[in-house]
Formats: sequence, structure tokens, C-alpha cells
Amino acid sequence: MLGVDLIIPDVSYLVERSDRVRGILITHGHEDHIGALPHILPQLNVPVFAPKLAHGLIAVKLHENRATRGISAQPIEPGVDYQLVIHTGDFKIDHTPVDGHTIDLNTLAHYGNEGVLLLCSDSTYAEIPGYTASEQILGGALDRAIGDAPGRVMVATFASLISRVQQVIDAAASHNRKVAIVGRSMADNVSMAAEMGYLDLPPDTLVSLNEIRGYSPERTVLITTGSQGEPTSALVRIANKDHRDVSVMEGDTVVISATPIPGNELLVSRTIDNLLRQGARVLYDRIALVHVHGHASQEELKMMLSLTRPRYFVPVHGEYRHLMAHAKLAWDMGLAESGIFVLEDGDVLELSEDGGRVVESVSAGPIFIDGPVTRDVRSEVLRERKALARDGVVVLVVSVDGQTGQPASPTKVLASGFMDDSETDDLFPRLSVLIDDLVKDRQEFAEEPERVKNLVREAAGRFLQTEARRRPTIVTVLLES
Amino acid sequence: MLGVDLIIPDVSYLVERSDRVRGILITHGHEDHIGALPHILPQLNVPVFAPKLAHGLIAVKLHENRATRGISAQPIEPGVDYQLVIHTGDFKIDHTPVDGHTIDLNTLAHYGNEGVLLLCSDSTYAEIPGYTASEQILGGALDRAIGDAPGRVMVATFASLISRVQQVIDAAASHNRKVAIVGRSMADNVSMAAEMGYLDLPPDTLVSLNEIRGYSPERTVLITTGSQGEPTSALVRIANKDHRDVSVMEGDTVVISATPIPGNELLVSRTIDNLLRQGARVLYDRIALVHVHGHASQEELKMMLSLTRPRYFVPVHGEYRHLMAHAKLAWDMGLAESGIFVLEDGDVLELSEDGGRVVESVSAGPIFIDGPVTRDVRSEVLRERKALARDGVVVLVVSVDGQTGQPASPTKVLASGFMDDSETDDLFPRLSVLIDDLVKDRQEFAEEPERVKNLVREAAGRFLQTEARRRPTIVTVLLES
Repeated sequence: MLGVDLIIPDVSYLVERSDRVRGILITHGHEDHIGALPHILPQLNVPVFAPKLAHGLIAVKLHENRATRGISAQPIEPGVDYQLVIHTGDFKIDHTPVDGHTIDLNTLAHYGNEGVLLLCSDSTYAEIPGYTASEQILGGALDRAIGDAPGRVMVATFASLISRVQQVIDAAASHNRKVAIVGRSMADNVSMAAEMGYLDLPPDTLVSLNEIRGYSPERTVLITTGSQGEPTSALVRIANKDHRDVSVMEGDTVVISATPIPGNELLVSRTIDNLLRQGARVLYDRIALVHVHGHASQEELKMMLSLTRPRYFVPVHGEYRHLMAHAKLAWDMGLAESGIFVLEDGDVLELSEDGGRVVESVSAGPIFIDGPVTRDVRSEVLRERKALARDGVVVLVVSVDGQTGQPASPTKVLASGFMDDSETDDLFPRLSVLIDDLVKDRQEFAEEPERVKNLVREAAGRFLQTEARRRPTIVTVLLES
Repeated sequence: MLGVDLIIPDVSYLVERSDRVRGILITHGHEDHIGALPHILPQLNVPVFAPKLAHGLIAVKLHENRATRGISAQPIEPGVDYQLVIHTGDFKIDHTPVDGHTIDLNTLAHYGNEGVLLLCSDSTYAEIPGYTASEQILGGALDRAIGDAPGRVMVATFASLISRVQQVIDAAASHNRKVAIVGRSMADNVSMAAEMGYLDLPPDTLVSLNEIRGYSPERTVLITTGSQGEPTSALVRIANKDHRDVSVMEGDTVVISATPIPGNELLVSRTIDNLLRQGARVLYDRIALVHVHGHASQEELKMMLSLTRPRYFVPVHGEYRHLMAHAKLAWDMGLAESGIFVLEDGDVLELSEDGGRVVESVSAGPIFIDGPVTRDVRSEVLRERKALARDGVVVLVVSVDGQTGQPASPTKVLASGFMDDSETDDLFPRLSVLIDDLVKDRQEFAEEPERVKNLVREAAGRFLQTEARRRPTIVTVLLES
């Protein structure tokens, strides 16, 4: 929106104190956790610590970006000691995860016994009662969906959700189907994960997009990006009949293995509709089991609080209402209100023997990536674009004789995004006459051109507001001849 | 978005054939069913038939609008015969509705026995298994929410959802609280509904916003608009500390008695967050029973199909995927595929003894209400605003000597929404020189000014794309002196 490509946090506070920043800790490699790194690391050159798979996903991302080629993260090995508070990252308590590595509850309990100063815990699903389902349930569901499909299957998911890709490949292999990857970010991540041993590829299952054309549809599965309806993603281009290599065929089944992130609902909905219009069968979260959430629900959040027994608690990750819901859970479990801190971005929390308090609030974003430059919320340029989007622009070119201060030629009026030409045929000549009359009556042009310019802008604004009920941006050019 | 106030259907096909249009049938008075009437009726002056309460809501709406003051709808009385196909409108099968008027299943069954040509049925919840809950459940929940609240309660809902207003008033009265209405559309509808006898007001319960200040907070309830996070609504202004009469107080409970309509999720979420930040307790659909849906789920849809036994079936109301899901339900129940029609807006369905078929597709919208005028999807103005929103505008004023074709003064470059002044300090003078050099080399100005103008625009576009990686709208003014 408004030409903005990405929104990242403002790290200027950290950059100014970079000698005291010990590192950036990445809990896992999903896009909302690593996406800002290519923009932050060139300013804040500190160590990045990440688990091994996240390390691989970060490496792919940094390599894609010219500014960060050569910069690298440091993989964290399990069992190595770092002295930090407990931060859950995104978590759920899954006793049967895809990769078999279950959550280490015992170590959490051990820390709880030793005494935890601060717990920062995932709040995204703090509104949801009960437990989040295991990834295992989904494996069976995907297997059935692919097994039952009469023709080709396309599965869309997040490019960084390697465990889901594994599940799709397993299901494809079990039904003797070949798999090809569509979408560059997905292909890059899959090769990285395979190389690092995080993807277990059954022999001869993964083939190129070109090779898979040689197989009949019911022997094939495509894995694509676009599960959030991202406008330039593979699935959306397929849905819009705009993809170079893939188009919907009679008998296709499309599985959207994700839930819309808040704000993406309409994009996802439009993508589903366009796939249906082309005759595909579409399985999505409202009508089929095609995704389970990656965040802990209330009972798991309570379990985490209960195991770690923190002295202080900061709910993190989620909208303000999620943080409040998580704080309420902690309070209901008996944590003292004075130990629970619902923070806004930039709040500085100071913990001491006597207690904790928010001591200041520093600037922490958002920062808008606007093509090659960055902007913050005070940006005049973004405000101008907002105004242009609403009412367009009207350009007035006023020529004045430098000697007499009188109009040298009639004022020219041009516009973009304002109204149709047919609607301004009558309006603009009248505006031109109005401005010429205004300039004629003013004698101060030679001394105060800025003043005349402002008078012209104001008069034009009033005229267009009265006559056309709009408030376009008005660009005034005064030319002296 | 893009200055558009409302989106309505294109009725030009009907306007051209208005002598054959027997009327507009309004099933009920919710905004998405009556909101376009003030814009359509001035063009398409045909009878409007509506049930009595909808008739009242339409009257309020038409009266608000200058163009339709004086135009009126005709109330439909139950039991009067009209010869039409069956159209459900928005429906659910609620055996215990707020007003006590249950759905007349027996009449539907009677028509089913006589033979129904066509059923058009609500598809909004065709993805949802089971039955939709009764409004009665909600009455109890609202009663408890209001009874348990330690201070003032604000309930936000749709201005046209009169039965919900009744439930809130009943709950307030049962806890001996006074009620005031905030928001003009809500206030207008409440007085209309009370006058027509559709709201049963316990004596001395409803007071003015001014009077209610005289009561202590725990004796009061406010009913407001803004349940969809609409930017200019009462609740959003209260959440933004921007309402003239009402601000959040310590101890307030806000009940958002609605579910976000797809597309409004972020607006609603932001409103909840802002209310929480001000210290209000907020009850909303994710964490409390504060709303039940007004649309039939799958079992009710099947019941409707089963009772009416239509020869032809057209799923209506919903996104394309809802229509497809509803069509699949009908097909699963044994309706012949040749009798089920999933239509797009504008499709013309012709039914005859031999069968039905889509014979043509006419223009049916959307039409954008852009201040005082209307535009359609081909509108150049909206396309221009989209471009302006993304990259802003750069204005070039080129002065050329009419005799020699040479630049008379350096090209002026101005911009809005393009880049910050500091970012163009170096860029624009270089662009100016580039354009002057270009004009200097061209001799054809006198004969072909349009050609020079195009050359200037193209050169500037290439320059800005290369140097600033942006593609602003370029407005070129050629002045001959």
C-alpha cells in the first residue's frame, strides 16, 4: 500500500548503542521472524544466533539480497549454554511433531525449579480455549486428500514451513506421485533444507517442473507459494491465468494448507474464488482439515507458565488484545499483577530486586521500505500519497509578466486522478479565469511570489471544493516571463 | 479506498428496460440489502416492496438523502399474494426468535407440495456444518454481561439490527439500567422502530445522551454504532478519544455484538486494541458469546431445499466459494446438476419447460460512488489514483521559445508523494538539465508539440526509473513563449 514494499521495526535505538548489543536471537525461520534481517543487518552489524534450520532459511534470505551477501548467522547447537531469559518464540506443545523432536518440557521444568526471572511467551492464540492440534493429525488428512484426488494436486503453504513440505512429499510418495516445486522462495528453501538434512526426500520423488509434465496428472503433486493470496505469488498467478508454466486443468485439486493471517482474508478469498471459477476443486481451512495452527492455545500457555514459574511475565507476539488475554490467563493462575507487563513496541522494562517498571519508551517503528529508501510514520511523502489516492492532483501553471505582475498567458490547468476529462471540460476553464482574475488584482507578485502562490492554491482549493466537492492535492507553478 | 464512498450494483440494464421492471423486492432492512436504494431509485423509479420493518428502515435512509426525499417504499403485509419464485433473503431457522415470529415452515412446505419452479437461497454460511444458534441464547448472554459489569456498558451493533437493540434494552431494564443511543443512524432507526411498534421500550428506560450523564455509570448502558470498526462511527471515535460526547471511563465494559464482515477484520481489531489501551474491558466474538450469526448453516440450508423441493436452484448471497459450497449441498441431496446454476453478477438465466440455461451476461457492476459522481471498473480516474498512491506525481514545466524551439528557461520540476525533498535535491536539477538538453536537440517543436511532450515524458520516466527506482505519474506542461 502507498508504494510500501515491507514494514520493519525501527532499530535506531539499538544502532546507537550497538556496542552494547550482544546479538540478535532468532527463534525460528518463519518470514515474520526473519524477514527484516536483510534490512537491519547492514545497519546493526551484530551476531545473529539461530537454530540450525532457521540458520539455513536466513542464509537463503541474506543471499537473495545484495546488501547482505556475505553476512551470516551463527547456528545454535542444542545443549550449548547461553545465559538469557526464557523466550518461547512461536510454540505449541506437540507431542507428535513431524520431525519427531518433541518440546523439551523437562528442561523447562528444571529451569522453573532453579528460578526464572522473566518469561516472554507467545500470545497469538491466547484467546483460544483448550489445546492446539498436533501436526500429526494433518499428516493423515493431507495423505487422504492427495490419495483421493482424481487428478493433479497443488498444495500451497508458507515457503518457510519445511515440516509441512515434508508432510506433502511423504503423502505424495505414499501414493506414488511425483512432486515439483513452484515459486522461487519455496524452491530455494526446499533445496537448502534437503541439503541440510531437514527434508527427507524419498528417492525419485522430487522432479523439476519441466520433468513433471511427462507424468499424467493423477501421478503428480505441485507445492507452491501463495497460501496468503500474495499478489505476485505462484498460486495467485495460476488463479489469475497469469503463470508462465502452470495453468489450472480439469480435475485439479488445490489444497490451501494455511489459515489467512489477519488482513489477508480478502486476498485469500479472491484466490479461492478464481481457482473455483477455473473448475478446480479447492480444499481450504473452512471446509477441510488442511492446516493446524503453530501457536499454543490457552491450556498450553498455562502449562508453560506453570512449568517455568517466572517471577516476571511479558506476553509477546500478537495484537494488543492477545497480550491482554494472555496477561489475564497469567493473572488467573495467581501471578501477581505487579509482575505482569503488557508492553507496547519500544517500551523499556527495567527489572530489579525491588520489582519491575517501564522506565521509558523509545522509538521502535514501524519503518516502511519504500523502494530503495526507508520512511517512518511521520513521512510527508506517505501522507501526500494518501491524499493523492483519495482525490488526485490538479496542477496550475500561472505565467506572470515580471515587469507588470499581470498574467502573461491564461493559467493552464492539468490533472491526474481527479475527475474524468468530460467532467472538467467546463470546470477547468472557469478555474483558469478565476486564477487569472486573482493574479490581475494582486500587485505584490514581484516582492512576494510565495504569497501569491499560496493565494492561488487556496482559491483553487475553495473553488474545487465548492464546485466538485473534492479536495485534490494542488501543485502550483508560478512562471515569470 | 481511492476516494470511493460506496460500491453499488450497475442497474443500467434495468434502467433501459424500466417499463418491464415490475419492482424491487427488499427482503429485509440490513445495510447490505437497502444501502444502494438512495442511488438506484433516482434512476430506476419502480415500486419497492418491503416487509414493514424494512419499510421503516428504508424510509429513514431515503429521508436522509436529498435525492430520494419523497420517494417511498410499499410495505408488504403478510398473507397478501404475490406470484414470484422463492427467494429466502438472509435467513436462519430460529425456533425462538426475539420478536416471537417464527419462520413459517408450513407455508414453505405447502409451496413445496404445489411445485416450486426456482429457489434462490442464502449461501453465506454454506461452508458451516450443523445449525446456527438461536437469538435466544444471546439474550441470556447479554443479560449476564450487563448484569456482571461493574460500571457502564457500551454495546456496539449494526444500526439496522433492531432485534439486537431490543435484547440490549431488555437486559438493561432487567438490571435497572438506563439506556442512551450514540450515533445518528442508530438513533434514527431506534425512533422509527419504536414508533412503528417494533421496539418494545420499558417505561423510563431510554433516555437522551445528555440525561444519562446524571446517572452513576453502573446504572447505564450505551448502544452505539461501530461494530465493524467503521472509521467515522461512534465507537471508533470513542476508541480514538475523538468523540464529542463520550470517552472511555475506568470500569467501562464494551460489548462488540457482531462478527467482523470479511475485509473489516483489521478495523475491528484496531478498535478493540484502542479500547483496551484506554482501560476498558472488551467482550468480542473470539472471547465471549456476544453475537450469533444471522445466516443458515448447512443443516438449515438442506431443510430449506427439502421443504421447497425446487425444480431449479440458484444459490445466492455470498462469495463464489459460498455459492459453490451451497451448490454442492444441493447436488449431494440429489438435485440434478442440470437444475443447479451458480451464477456470476449479470448472468441472465432463462428457464423453460425444457430446462434452464444462461443465455447472456449483462453489465451489472460494480459502480463506485466517487463523491458527487459514479464510476465503473474501466474508470481512468481510479486507475490514475492507484498509480498516484503507489509512486506519487512529478510535474515538469518546459518553457520553449516559439520562434527557435529552444528552451526559454530551465525546466521546472515539482513533485507530490514522490520522494522527500532531501532525496530529490540532487535528482531534480539533473532531470531538469536532461530535459533541456533533450528539447535543445529537437527542432520539431513548432510542428509537433505533442511529440516533444511524449519524448519528454518518456525520458523523464526512464531517468526516474533508473535513478530512483520509481515510476511516478508524470505530468508534462509545455509552455511556448
